[in-house]
Amino acid sequence: RRGRRLRRALAARPWTLWRYRELLPLVDFDGRVDLGEGGTPLVPLVGAGAPARLWLKNEAGNPTGSFKDRGMALAVTRARELGAPGVELASAGNAAISLAAYATAAGLPWRVALPADAPEAVERRCRAHGGEVLRFPGTLVEAGQRLAEQEGDFWNVSTLREPYRVEGKKTMGLELAEQFDWRLPEWIVYPTGGGTGILGMRKAFDELAAAGLLRGPRPRFVVVQMAGCAPIVRAFERGEESAEPWVAPQTRVWGLRVPRALGDFLILEALRLSGGLAVAVDEAAIAERQAETARRHGLAIGPEGAAALEAALGLVESGRIGAGERVVVFQTGHPANYGG
Amino acid sequence: RRGRRLRRALAARPWTLWRYRELLPLVDFDGRVDLGEGGTPLVPLVGAGAPARLWLKNEAGNPTGSFKDRGMALAVTRARELGAPGVELASAGNAAISLAAYATAAGLPWRVALPADAPEAVERRCRAHGGEVLRFPGTLVEAGQRLAEQEGDFWNVSTLREPYRVEGKKTMGLELAEQFDWRLPEWIVYPTGGGTGILGMRKAFDELAAAGLLRGPRPRFVVVQMAGCAPIVRAFERGEESAEPWVAPQTRVWGLRVPRALGDFLILEALRLSGGLAVAVDEAAIAERQAETARRHGLAIGPEGAAALEAALGLVESGRIGAGERVVVFQTGHPANYGG
Repeated sequence: RRGRRLRRALAARPWTLWRYRELLPLVDFDGRVDLGEGGTPLVPLVGAGAPARLWLKNEAGNPTGSFKDRGMALAVTRARELGAPGVELASAGNAAISLAAYATAAGLPWRVALPADAPEAVERRCRAHGGEVLRFPGTLVEAGQRLAEQEGDFWNVSTLREPYRVEGKKTMGLELAEQFDWRLPEWIVYPTGGGTGILGMRKAFDELAAAGLLRGPRPRFVVVQMAGCAPIVRAFERGEESAEPWVAPQTRVWGLRVPRALGDFLILEALRLSGGLAVAVDEAAIAERQAETARRHGLAIGPEGAAALEAALGLVESGRIGAGERVVVFQTGHPANYGG
Repeated sequence: RRGRRLRRALAARPWTLWRYRELLPLVDFDGRVDLGEGGTPLVPLVGAGAPARLWLKNEAGNPTGSFKDRGMALAVTRARELGAPGVELASAGNAAISLAAYATAAGLPWRVALPADAPEAVERRCRAHGGEVLRFPGTLVEAGQRLAEQEGDFWNVSTLREPYRVEGKKTMGLELAEQFDWRLPEWIVYPTGGGTGILGMRKAFDELAAAGLLRGPRPRFVVVQMAGCAPIVRAFERGEESAEPWVAPQTRVWGLRVPRALGDFLILEALRLSGGLAVAVDEAAIAERQAETARRHGLAIGPEGAAALEAALGLVESGRIGAGERVVVFQTGHPANYGG
């Protein structure tokens, strides 16, 4: 059977996302852009979240310090393979750094557009790779619009503008399945900006189920956003099928400062089908959760990961997440990317 | 056979250093301090170092951003197991951050001593974990002496003061063997401060050979130090069995600002037995090598990794490393740990 063959093949492969090559859309495996992405650890948060059991899926160890590397490795590999003259996107943070690194490794010209208030550290990290860094007033949405007005024929690899970033994010779901010995956790708590991760993981679980590799039920997703920018949470609570853009987003959690997700309706669908939940976290909780996690667990976590952890702990406390349930909290990036 | 049993067991294990548990000295496996350390990728440096073949063993993705986490995970686990009231060490950089994180995760009190000129970012990262951070005038040697004069009965877990950090560093050798399918590369280029990594890898190769797991010859080590602080290189060139302390070290490559290594004679022995080399790198080459690696390969590397890469490229250019030979360059830490 296909699943058994895959499991056997996995035994001898490097622990990067490329170990799942049969489930990736790549044509030329040897032509991949590989900086060692994926294969991130599942770290038990000992003593936190009882009576549930919590793990951090810590994505900070990726090559540029965030989960964006998964999608970018696939997107840039395919863009080069298909003859792109260059690649570009708008981002407030980790996606820009990741694109800069992967396009550089691929030998492709690149351009990123940052909103005016994106952290200086993000710009510095992008510039180190030698491409073009633009700054525009407004939020991510405006930066994206201004980028589209620029001259040139670079391919736009923004979230859901092309199919391969989802394929890369899919590997988060594949890894979770393998790390839990093919019996997925009851809950996946995910800080949601563009939401590619949720769509990717849902696809991963579908594909693993089709290959006969999953045991037990599917996880329930928890979408986590910030109180000052929570379009998906608001739409979920109102029972809407798509999310109105959030006017005047207020949050310094850069990865969650996304007023409008292109795949809003897909995220909401995945969320409801999984029997999931949506939670908005207060801005004031972030710094404290980061500090507490460093002082108690010895872990430096990013603001997005802190939001997810805060939400998870709240759901345990309120009883929405029950005793003995297994909860994976996505810690999506290293705080140093924002200068922390 | 023991080796075959181990290989079979590895197939289903998480890709952290704990996968080699049969080769680790730990008593209580379930009581380990585990932040997800080890399992770092081997990144091919495409187009660099021809006609040899170069890989970076990129240790930046470890939980606190450096290879120190390997030794510290073992040392702190064992210290707690054996009843230490607390742990301490002197360090100019990554080891201090790592100790702070692991001791915190273990619930042990801790203290670190930094030399006066250690980067401010190092101090900030240590303090985030809530223990005691001291600053002393002079180099690492003086900081170590002053730490020893402090009150209290914390256990000193400095390089080679206890046996477990070497055991943790050993896993770099175990991973290399597994990543190269048990046929080790011809060269290992290693930025050498205290040198625990070389001693650990040598031990790893001995143990794997005893288990019948190695195919082919042992790698040759290249010790890399800075021109302004190169005690091991000088002793190697003079044919001495131990290394005189370096007077007035001059380098901003913090991990290599080690005027005196406790295990100098062991490093020199391992180096000679392997048929290796020792190289001192000019200070001026570091920033340029870091910039070039970011612009060409999309990789952010630390100053120690840059030193090692600079040395490796020089040895290829001079013909000391030959065509087709496989070269692993240790990129031991993330530049952000120093504020970069």
